[in-house]
Amino acid sequence: MVTVVKREQKILRILRLRVLDKPGYLGRIATRLGELEVNIGDVSIAGQGPDYLIRELSVQLKDEAHLQRVIESVTNNLDGVTVEGVIDPVEQAHRGGKIGMKSRAPLDTIAEMRKIYTPGVAQICKLIHKDASQSRIFTTIGNSVAVVTNGTAILGLGNIGPVAGMPVMEGKAVLYEQLVGISAIPILIESRSVEDVVNIVKGIASTFGAIHLEDIAAPECFEIEKRLEAELSIPVLHDDQHATAAVVLGALITISQRSGFHLENCRVGILGLGAAGAGIAQLLLSYGVKEILGADLRDDAMTRLKASGGTPANLDTVMRDSDIVIATTGVPGLIKPEAIRKDQIILAISNPDPEIDPELAIASGAKFAADGRTINNALAFPGLFKGALAAEARYFTSKMKIAAAQAIAGQTKLDDLVPSILDRGVHDHVANAVAIAANE
Amino acid sequence: MVTVVKREQKILRILRLRVLDKPGYLGRIATRLGELEVNIGDVSIAGQGPDYLIRELSVQLKDEAHLQRVIESVTNNLDGVTVEGVIDPVEQAHRGGKIGMKSRAPLDTIAEMRKIYTPGVAQICKLIHKDASQSRIFTTIGNSVAVVTNGTAILGLGNIGPVAGMPVMEGKAVLYEQLVGISAIPILIESRSVEDVVNIVKGIASTFGAIHLEDIAAPECFEIEKRLEAELSIPVLHDDQHATAAVVLGALITISQRSGFHLENCRVGILGLGAAGAGIAQLLLSYGVKEILGADLRDDAMTRLKASGGTPANLDTVMRDSDIVIATTGVPGLIKPEAIRKDQIILAISNPDPEIDPELAIASGAKFAADGRTINNALAFPGLFKGALAAEARYFTSKMKIAAAQAIAGQTKLDDLVPSILDRGVHDHVANAVAIAANE
Repeated sequence: MVTVVKREQKILRILRLRVLDKPGYLGRIATRLGELEVNIGDVSIAGQGPDYLIRELSVQLKDEAHLQRVIESVTNNLDGVTVEGVIDPVEQAHRGGKIGMKSRAPLDTIAEMRKIYTPGVAQICKLIHKDASQSRIFTTIGNSVAVVTNGTAILGLGNIGPVAGMPVMEGKAVLYEQLVGISAIPILIESRSVEDVVNIVKGIASTFGAIHLEDIAAPECFEIEKRLEAELSIPVLHDDQHATAAVVLGALITISQRSGFHLENCRVGILGLGAAGAGIAQLLLSYGVKEILGADLRDDAMTRLKASGGTPANLDTVMRDSDIVIATTGVPGLIKPEAIRKDQIILAISNPDPEIDPELAIASGAKFAADGRTINNALAFPGLFKGALAAEARYFTSKMKIAAAQAIAGQTKLDDLVPSILDRGVHDHVANAVAIAANE
Repeated sequence: MVTVVKREQKILRILRLRVLDKPGYLGRIATRLGELEVNIGDVSIAGQGPDYLIRELSVQLKDEAHLQRVIESVTNNLDGVTVEGVIDPVEQAHRGGKIGMKSRAPLDTIAEMRKIYTPGVAQICKLIHKDASQSRIFTTIGNSVAVVTNGTAILGLGNIGPVAGMPVMEGKAVLYEQLVGISAIPILIESRSVEDVVNIVKGIASTFGAIHLEDIAAPECFEIEKRLEAELSIPVLHDDQHATAAVVLGALITISQRSGFHLENCRVGILGLGAAGAGIAQLLLSYGVKEILGADLRDDAMTRLKASGGTPANLDTVMRDSDIVIATTGVPGLIKPEAIRKDQIILAISNPDPEIDPELAIASGAKFAADGRTINNALAFPGLFKGALAAEARYFTSKMKIAAAQAIAGQTKLDDLVPSILDRGVHDHVANAVAIAANE
């Protein structure tokens, strides 16, 4: 019997409690919350009075109803404890937006202003006018990435439009800045049309050193990326396809090295051939995997798979015949425990809910299993873009993506499947590997 | 006889000198530089050895030849002083670009990542999907301004293209952030066509709370602004027209109050009816000025002036018949000293070189005179946009621009013509006045 508790806890809250300042109270609160199936994270003292403390407890809960039960239970059953308030830490972290364009230097004197603005700035404008390549040295263009979406495939939420997708784009910008120091600019385009997206991105492309396409639905994403790659002289990458693929390949390299098999000789099955599935199929084929099976409900997806060298199949065939199964369908629970073959490798990476829980997959005979919390494209995209910008690459090649995957595998610590996203050194390694591959 | 020394000094440099560490040396250096007609700014000690100091002197020089003469003279004539190097502080300030997109919070733990990225972010996406107005609270959109240029009229440099104009756009972004905390995003568009600029800006407009058009040449700038105003539901403003106009009006309000005349009853002459001149004419007419004379070499400019209520004239007539002359022609020295009428007010605001030097205008009989160093649109645009965003205005009205001008006048200290650009309080006052006017 496998218990999967964590995934049930969907909402994060901070409980603000007024508690009598006597020994034993925190124990009683924590015990009660445990009985109510609440996961407790950080506990901090946020204030105090003559005989009480204000304590803030970060908690994970199932849903709003669960929160209500917790509030009632604490209020009615714990003497000396009052619920002062409930803070939503996610809303708190988003209030006012998560990013902002900042000056790299202060502006306190007229002398500084005369350097960065008129009249000094004219000197730099003239320099760039004479030699456009100077813009890489004297402007932020060479360190800037546009994070472009039309909002048609936001997370697991679907076509909710670009404005509703903005928090994701801002999240990407935070990761870019914090992990590799790139200035990432969200660009929201209000159109589903390939033609519109291509023309608008082309129209503003000289502002940036590279174009990161994000959460654009299949099949439009394929043509948008292909056309922009052909028509622009800066690198373009659809994150959902290729960064995800690089992380998957990285994890598979790690698994194959540990288990002593050759990835190239494995039969890999891919469930779901949207952006992520198609990108994974393509990269594995470039890497040298000989047999790729793929299943998707859409005919055009199957046609694309065939064109790129894979073999169309159905769900049952993929599950039966594959050594490695990678699922990107967005359908929670699609993989039944009884379908798992002994010693199969299962990467069920749909977010927020996987096709099968890794714990359940292992319990059903899988040798390795992981989900989208582990296989996160944020491991790859910062380094991919950093490397491409550093090398002033004009496009991303398969070599660069494979180099990213190998760097990820190389940075993975014993017992882990992939490295930690927050380890800055990992991103530096990926960036360096990508830059070297770009220069080859 | 009027000497205008400052304007001749065109280049800024930092002289890095190795100087014997004995009393009297700085005096000798400063005296020598004075004899060589060098303006000295900051002097700092950048290093030291057993018997010497490394001193850095910020200096203003005429040109590169002047710099060479200074280096030779210091090297040959000052014992105990060696030129270690010459730093270009403008290049230094621009290296790597002047701006960058930054996270508003650190990203050090997985808990933080789960809040600002997956899975937490989905909650905010859903919130905005249900109610689009929530994007003003939970994203940076409501505090963002796109600074859009097609590079056709960069500073006084003309049509040098958007990439060569990027340092100016970054400069604007620095001013926005430092002066009013707005996140300003340069957007470079590679097209002169009105249709292209309009379509591209419309295509990405939902990313921003407002659109700042910058350094777009007349006459295209008029139609681009008009069409975007009509077709977008967020405020659009062409800085060169309206922010400049607000500062000019602010200065004129101050002058009229001090001199005890009614601005409305003055005859105002405008030389040059490009973006700035046209914007000034329009705003002064909205303010209530009854007589505006205007001169420009282009017929379409004269037609526009007539349509907005002004009277076409020529240079001589404007100079002869106007109580106040505002020059925005970009032609240095256009106004001859002998053309100045006694007690005339002369604002010759072309950058970097005015139509007449203020000192010379005063010496020739003008009552007040100023140039573009004083009449700087950076006094108005940050507050105009801050106020419009705060009020969630859908467009800029004349009332808002006049409110900005009045706030600028209200914040001007005795003996000054306009307030200091670096005084943050001024920009707050402008923003508040604009927001109040927007809400009326």
